[in-house]
Amino acid sequence: MERFSVSRRLVAEGLGSTLLLAVVIGSGIMGERLAGGNVAIALLGNTLATGAALVVLIWVFGPISGAHFNPAVTLVAALRRDLPWSLTPGYLLAQIGGAILGAWCAHAMFGEAIFQVSTKLRDGGAQAFSEAVATFGLLATILGTSRFRPDSTPMAVGLYITAAYWFTASTSFANPAVTVARSLSDTFAGIAPSSAPAFILAQLFGALLAAGVFGWLLKTDTTP
Amino acid sequence: MERFSVSRRLVAEGLGSTLLLAVVIGSGIMGERLAGGNVAIALLGNTLATGAALVVLIWVFGPISGAHFNPAVTLVAALRRDLPWSLTPGYLLAQIGGAILGAWCAHAMFGEAIFQVSTKLRDGGAQAFSEAVATFGLLATILGTSRFRPDSTPMAVGLYITAAYWFTASTSFANPAVTVARSLSDTFAGIAPSSAPAFILAQLFGALLAAGVFGWLLKTDTTP
Amino acid sequence: MERFSVSRRLVAEGLGSTLLLAVVIGSGIMGERLAGGNVAIALLGNTLATGAALVVLIWVFGPISGAHFNPAVTLVAALRRDLPWSLTPGYLLAQIGGAILGAWCAHAMFGEAIFQVSTKLRDGGAQAFSEAVATFGLLATILGTSRFRPDSTPMAVGLYITAAYWFTASTSFANPAVTVARSLSDTFAGIAPSSAPAFILAQLFGALLAAGVFGWLLKTDTTP
Amino acid sequence: MERFSVSRRLVAEGLGSTLLLAVVIGSGIMGERLAGGNVAIALLGNTLATGAALVVLIWVFGPISGAHFNPAVTLVAALRRDLPWSLTPGYLLAQIGGAILGAWCAHAMFGEAIFQVSTKLRDGGAQAFSEAVATFGLLATILGTSRFRPDSTPMAVGLYITAAYWFTASTSFANPAVTVARSLSDTFAGIAPSSAPAFILAQLFGALLAAGVFGWLLKTDTTP
Repeated sequence: MERFSVSRRLVAEGLGSTLLLAVVIGSGIMGERLAGGNVAIALLGNTLATGAALVVLIWVFGPISGAHFNPAVTLVAALRRDLPWSLTPGYLLAQIGGAILGAWCAHAMFGEAIFQVSTKLRDGGAQAFSEAVATFGLLATILGTSRFRPDSTPMAVGLYITAAYWFTASTSFANPAVTVARSLSDTFAGIAPSSAPAFILAQLFGALLAAGVFGWLLKTDTTP
Repeated sequence: MERFSVSRRLVAEGLGSTLLLAVVIGSGIMGERLAGGNVAIALLGNTLATGAALVVLIWVFGPISGAHFNPAVTLVAALRRDLPWSLTPGYLLAQIGGAILGAWCAHAMFGEAIFQVSTKLRDGGAQAFSEAVATFGLLATILGTSRFRPDSTPMAVGLYITAAYWFTASTSFANPAVTVARSLSDTFAGIAPSSAPAFILAQLFGALLAAGVFGWLLKTDTTP
Repeated sequence: MERFSVSRRLVAEGLGSTLLLAVVIGSGIMGERLAGGNVAIALLGNTLATGAALVVLIWVFGPISGAHFNPAVTLVAALRRDLPWSLTPGYLLAQIGGAILGAWCAHAMFGEAIFQVSTKLRDGGAQAFSEAVATFGLLATILGTSRFRPDSTPMAVGLYITAAYWFTASTSFANPAVTVARSLSDTFAGIAPSSAPAFILAQLFGALLAAGVFGWLLKTDTTP
Repeated sequence: MERFSVSRRLVAEGLGSTLLLAVVIGSGIMGERLAGGNVAIALLGNTLATGAALVVLIWVFGPISGAHFNPAVTLVAALRRDLPWSLTPGYLLAQIGGAILGAWCAHAMFGEAIFQVSTKLRDGGAQAFSEAVATFGLLATILGTSRFRPDSTPMAVGLYITAAYWFTASTSFANPAVTVARSLSDTFAGIAPSSAPAFILAQLFGALLAAGVFGWLLKTDTTP
């Protein structure tokens, strides 16, 4: 494991989060513009782009910062002592700031107003339950593959999110920084600010539940 | 090979089956809701999600339990002495119970009634023949790649099911536990309970045929 | 390299060709039935299934027989002395016979008449040129990756055919055995028997051209 | 690292660029012809083909020439002394000449007039900004993965372009040679010659910016 300076690690978290949101929101706009009203086709393009980009971003930035891009992941890493608590506030700020920049970058690429606020309500218990399941699955993916085949974690995260865009009713935000940034985009991928807090709470709940379950499950045991 | 306790192995089979069914049924509902009546587009989303999730689930749970999630696979493993017979009943119960929970989890995420019974008839010889071919191919995939490049088995299973959703007339259930669980969902991925027994018989026939054919084919031979 | 008996090698070529054609023709029928007249969506399903299945089939059967499934590949292998000439007739028969069985298997799965003859004309110089380019690219893929990273050849062939279904006007048959079998299916993937000979000639031309070009290109050289 | 002669390296760059453009333009024509006016579906086919082909082309030609196929990549490689300046003019000529041949090859496969000039305007600051972001991301992908896991660079480039076709408003040309060749095709993938200079300038700007940022970011550091 190489050592990268704190400033490089924070830039990696921030720049990666910026590119991630540019992809999530940009491909949502592209899908919506081209799909002629067929939301499933728009979501196919959005899914393909997000899944593919995640693999690449984790390959590129993972060896520098761990490539969390996600406060729920950073929180679990800190609780498991995989990340020193002293770095945690910097990580969260870089992720949230980077993600917001990424939303604005997507707006600029598509000639939209830079500053927006989403009006897309995503309320209700089914949506929150979806986010808890989505984030549980994301952490299961990360904890399980990091334990058994860490080289596959980037690909696993990309594949997991590809699936999760389709199998959860919320299209799987699974990430508080992404949720904040998407609240600032009144496009396909947006979420009204009033819907965001329930999403974020559900995400943190799902992440912590996964940390507990997989903390037990992944322990080897000599009792047969 | 690490050793995991029996309880961890059964939880891995059960939790993996739950997540698998949440994906299969959830992405089916998503596809149907968004595709505006174009079934091919719904199936594209369903396929992408299922194939991607299978790879991840086998990466995560494979090192613990083998990640069968499938009574036909468990049966062949027991016949080949890859799994002790004593574990077989537990595996089957965990798979079926987990799969049913997964169906209910999908319903909850999409705000549907939790308890349902499918009304989608999938009858006739062509459907049963499809299931036999589908399960034959699944076991061929598992037995062949486990023999030659076991690291690729998870990816191979995901790719195989991606293909099988499209090349079989039944969209390839290829799994008795999945068949039972899908009979409890009156959505895109459902199957009427009256159609299920023929599916399951055909699946077992296809699996046993593959075990026989590949038992012979994969033996090396010094006669040129 | 393990040694497999001749009978196992021929069964591997034949069974692999059967499964390949079941996928190619089966997913074509599925696509056509579900896509509601949008041929691009049908082709997406057909592409996804074929590309995914090819990777799996080469992983499973490659270590036994080389997993050619294709007389053009077998011919080039024999010319390069990668396959003894004595095995060549058996390979060709297994490929063609297996492929025809695969077409019939697809028909049975979809409840179609088993014996059919295609009426889909695919004539003209642009189609033949497409097949020459398609097969040149296929052999380039095989020869190049076998030279530099043989473990990636199965994935490379699947990815190449995924691309070739879309970038050639003929949707890239690139395989004389596949061409013969598809002439016996009056479905999405069919080709009228009268169009087949020009396809096969163009395929052989493209394959031999690639063998020549890459025979030169892949030689290392100490002159800088 | 094997040594290949200069002539082989230039043929690899040229032939690879030809095949790349045949894929980019050919799959665009196929998509447009089949999609019945739904541009998102045409772009899905175009994306799938381009992403898949890029992986294969870099696997095949990378060990010979580096598989740049892209003057912006070659320029950055020369600035970083990864490629001798003496080879740079030959690389650029092979890339541009090969790319133009590829456009013509696509036209021939689809029975179109060989010589065309695009009339598709792609003007404005948002388009240029998109190209700068697209090429920044491409170089980030190449520099980051080459540093940490060079075996994954071909797959990373294919996945990145898959995402970039969707998340940038310009569908991510990200390559001056591709831009020139696409100006000679009045089809789905075309770009009017009057729009090309701004694209190329933006691409070079994005590439140089990435070279600077990642030159700093990828340096290890012993200060914690």
